[in-house]
Amino acid sequence: MGQGFVSLVGAGPGDPELWTVRALRRVQEAELVLYDALIDAAALHELTQAQCFCVGKRAGRASVRQETIHRLMIRAARQGKRVVRLKGGDPFVFGRGAEEAIALREAGVDFEVVPGVTTAVAAAELAGIPVTHRGVSTGFLVVAGHSGEALTRAVGGVRPDGVTLIVMMGLAVRGTIVATLTSCGWALATPAAIVCGASTADEWIWTGTLQDMVSAPVPAGVAGVLVIGDVVDVREALVVSAHPEVMYGGN
Amino acid sequence: MGQGFVSLVGAGPGDPELWTVRALRRVQEAELVLYDALIDAAALHELTQAQCFCVGKRAGRASVRQETIHRLMIRAARQGKRVVRLKGGDPFVFGRGAEEAIALREAGVDFEVVPGVTTAVAAAELAGIPVTHRGVSTGFLVVAGHSGEALTRAVGGVRPDGVTLIVMMGLAVRGTIVATLTSCGWALATPAAIVCGASTADEWIWTGTLQDMVSAPVPAGVAGVLVIGDVVDVREALVVSAHPEVMYGGN
Repeated sequence: MGQGFVSLVGAGPGDPELWTVRALRRVQEAELVLYDALIDAAALHELTQAQCFCVGKRAGRASVRQETIHRLMIRAARQGKRVVRLKGGDPFVFGRGAEEAIALREAGVDFEVVPGVTTAVAAAELAGIPVTHRGVSTGFLVVAGHSGEALTRAVGGVRPDGVTLIVMMGLAVRGTIVATLTSCGWALATPAAIVCGASTADEWIWTGTLQDMVSAPVPAGVAGVLVIGDVVDVREALVVSAHPEVMYGGN
Repeated sequence: MGQGFVSLVGAGPGDPELWTVRALRRVQEAELVLYDALIDAAALHELTQAQCFCVGKRAGRASVRQETIHRLMIRAARQGKRVVRLKGGDPFVFGRGAEEAIALREAGVDFEVVPGVTTAVAAAELAGIPVTHRGVSTGFLVVAGHSGEALTRAVGGVRPDGVTLIVMMGLAVRGTIVATLTSCGWALATPAAIVCGASTADEWIWTGTLQDMVSAPVPAGVAGVLVIGDVVDVREALVVSAHPEVMYGGN
């Protein structure tokens, strides 16, 4: 029996066309796929003959514990299987991907990491917002919003001019985020956007200001990305209409 | 004659296997491809029958002016052609992609943006460095290093704990970057890495500290990414060896 192998694969923001060519190849060749809740399960099953298990958190059900995911990967690899651990976005951006990599390394299991399109950048982009733009933003800061303390530490010193702030997993704590930013000197009139379900059929985009962001009528039960900074206003110069294939139109 | 169409496509860090499925499809269906200098031209020509022109800066030769790129895209689209503007990394991360999108919109040309794997994240990742990691880094800041003033404005307020700093286009100005960071309170002992040619045959990785970074023996004529922060040390727990297919090995 050959040595198994694990690929930690980023699946991008949602649409399987935004998988990398390598991601597609690994999924097609896999015998076991352990996928996160944000992955399009129907598309996945069409693309592979592998056994596919959702190990992410889904409506009402608890997610599989991190240690269990490690054990499932290691066991299958030791049985000689080609395993794909398919994660939303990029595996090393808030995905606990490096923890999984370390567990594999410690278990003596061969593995690789396949980068994906990070949702942090693509969610804004698919909504017509460039995270950098000459004369408007010279960089971008990506943070996770679910930990208020971590957020404060990360954005506490960032000056509100010239840098785009992207907050992942922050929908539920928008109030805290706005309070943190304003206490750090960000103006309530700073342009802001919320993008949910980027690149999926459920894509939902809101734009307004930091002040309005808290009361934005976000659809229930979806993941979203907050984009804060002057680049949000660039959207008006870019976007006319949105339909599934042609995201932007000239007329 | 049908209406032409322009796809602004991100090609990722270098390896064509890290293109998205949509990027591959667009390139295969294109009649004209305008590509940047960091794109693998040989691979590109194998993948498409389209006319392919390099519009990026290449050794010794000046790059095509931005306005010329706009004009070429618009003219071809008006001739009914399917045009791909292929850019390294992600089109909206320091790629002037939004400027090109605005030019197309103003010219009334239909277009779309296809996100790519951003080199900012993938260069670190392929070197075994996660830009976020539980207990080490709760976010990451991506800035361009070529403008000292912009860099100072962007990182001036960032606290050196808990956030990974990624500097694009900063190889030539490492001295300025280190001086800026230390004046902002970053310790000279902060772990740092340089990754050149990520995912290509010329991949070159250096790790050390902020202090050593200036004298790192970087190969000539390549693009590189600077990664600064405690996550650089996570690499030791992940990486054993690197060979073309298996980036990390368990034994």
